[in-house]
Amino acid sequence: MGQVGGEVVVLMDVNVSMFGMRARIALAEKQVEYEYSEQDLGNKSSLLLEMNPIHKKIPILIHNGKPVCESQIIVQYIDEVWHDKNPLLPSDPYQKSQARFWFDLIDKKAFNHGSKLWETKGEELEKAKKEFIEFYKTLEGELGDKPYFGGENFGFVDVGLIPYYSWFYAYETLGNFKVEGECPKLVAWAKRCMERESVSKSLADPQEVYEFVLRKFVGSK
Amino acid sequence: MGQVGGEVVVLMDVNVSMFGMRARIALAEKQVEYEYSEQDLGNKSSLLLEMNPIHKKIPILIHNGKPVCESQIIVQYIDEVWHDKNPLLPSDPYQKSQARFWFDLIDKKAFNHGSKLWETKGEELEKAKKEFIEFYKTLEGELGDKPYFGGENFGFVDVGLIPYYSWFYAYETLGNFKVEGECPKLVAWAKRCMERESVSKSLADPQEVYEFVLRKFVGSK
Repeated sequence: MGQVGGEVVVLMDVNVSMFGMRARIALAEKQVEYEYSEQDLGNKSSLLLEMNPIHKKIPILIHNGKPVCESQIIVQYIDEVWHDKNPLLPSDPYQKSQARFWFDLIDKKAFNHGSKLWETKGEELEKAKKEFIEFYKTLEGELGDKPYFGGENFGFVDVGLIPYYSWFYAYETLGNFKVEGECPKLVAWAKRCMERESVSKSLADPQEVYEFVLRKFVGSK
Repeated sequence: MGQVGGEVVVLMDVNVSMFGMRARIALAEKQVEYEYSEQDLGNKSSLLLEMNPIHKKIPILIHNGKPVCESQIIVQYIDEVWHDKNPLLPSDPYQKSQARFWFDLIDKKAFNHGSKLWETKGEELEKAKKEFIEFYKTLEGELGDKPYFGGENFGFVDVGLIPYYSWFYAYETLGNFKVEGECPKLVAWAKRCMERESVSKSLADPQEVYEFVLRKFVGSK
């Protein structure tokens, strides 16, 4: 399992993690066989601590015994190692810099914009919703009329953003709004991505994400 | 100015910015001629807002009229466009992922560890100092006995970290401690980097950084 032609690939992950989903999508795009290893973050394994002593976080890609950490770095690594199939990053340096810019923006903003929807109440929640929608409208503006952020082809930024789609149900339910009403083109893009097997089989079930959020974050609201 | 063989390169920057210094070092390593354009962040120019509408921050590298933002992305862009001279990132995908990991860690932690030294007092300051030193000891551990983070050659992680050296005087003066006493190998590395003209001519004067910090951040302490 996970061993093909001398390659041993293991993904230490948590099913509901948007960061883990990125790695799963990238591996599926490249048709890499790997061993999936679900982790219990409440009781971190000694292997997890050994493989990622700095951040102690998932996902961790272990390729032939050597760890790669941080999802943005993992996706680039996968793209570079298995470069012959479905390139994710464009080869032109300028286009590459722009793809990195948008992926980086998602990394800097998306998780926090989402979390604020269950960390706040009343006026603060209204402000958080407004900022959440503004953020996704900015991304929708960058998408424009292209089928994918990568243009004609599903690419790096698509991999970076689409996992958040599986969190939308939790965002919408706890924030009491619908992303589709605000950002119809973005939701159409998400549905287009979901037609890819690499995406649909990698994303967690929105109901499972919602229950995870309730269990993990909402108790104290 | 900044035009060589049809290339027009402009760097919108602020002299004391560690992020700007990274871009300056990378350009110097590649011997790229460019126009340096110092920005007033208290009164942002319309060009700055046009070139970086999302973050509204420096540095911005404008190459033939097109902007690249965010220092980590700029350094990679420079390395890719002018790839024939002094490569900064290793070519091996695994080594590349590790260089990205350490640069990313610096991006996630170094600025905040520094700022806490003037944002806190008393016990909190003692804790901030301890965490600052722990962070740099972790980096020193990664450096090990290599001359550079990049191994035998000055590379990507070196470019990412060395600008902070010009902030050490401010950190040490306001925190009342010496990094060299705690991390002698790291300071020896910094001095080694300073022997490179690309670094020594790109780093701001520590006294100027200190005065900037006093003016900009310390008033309220």
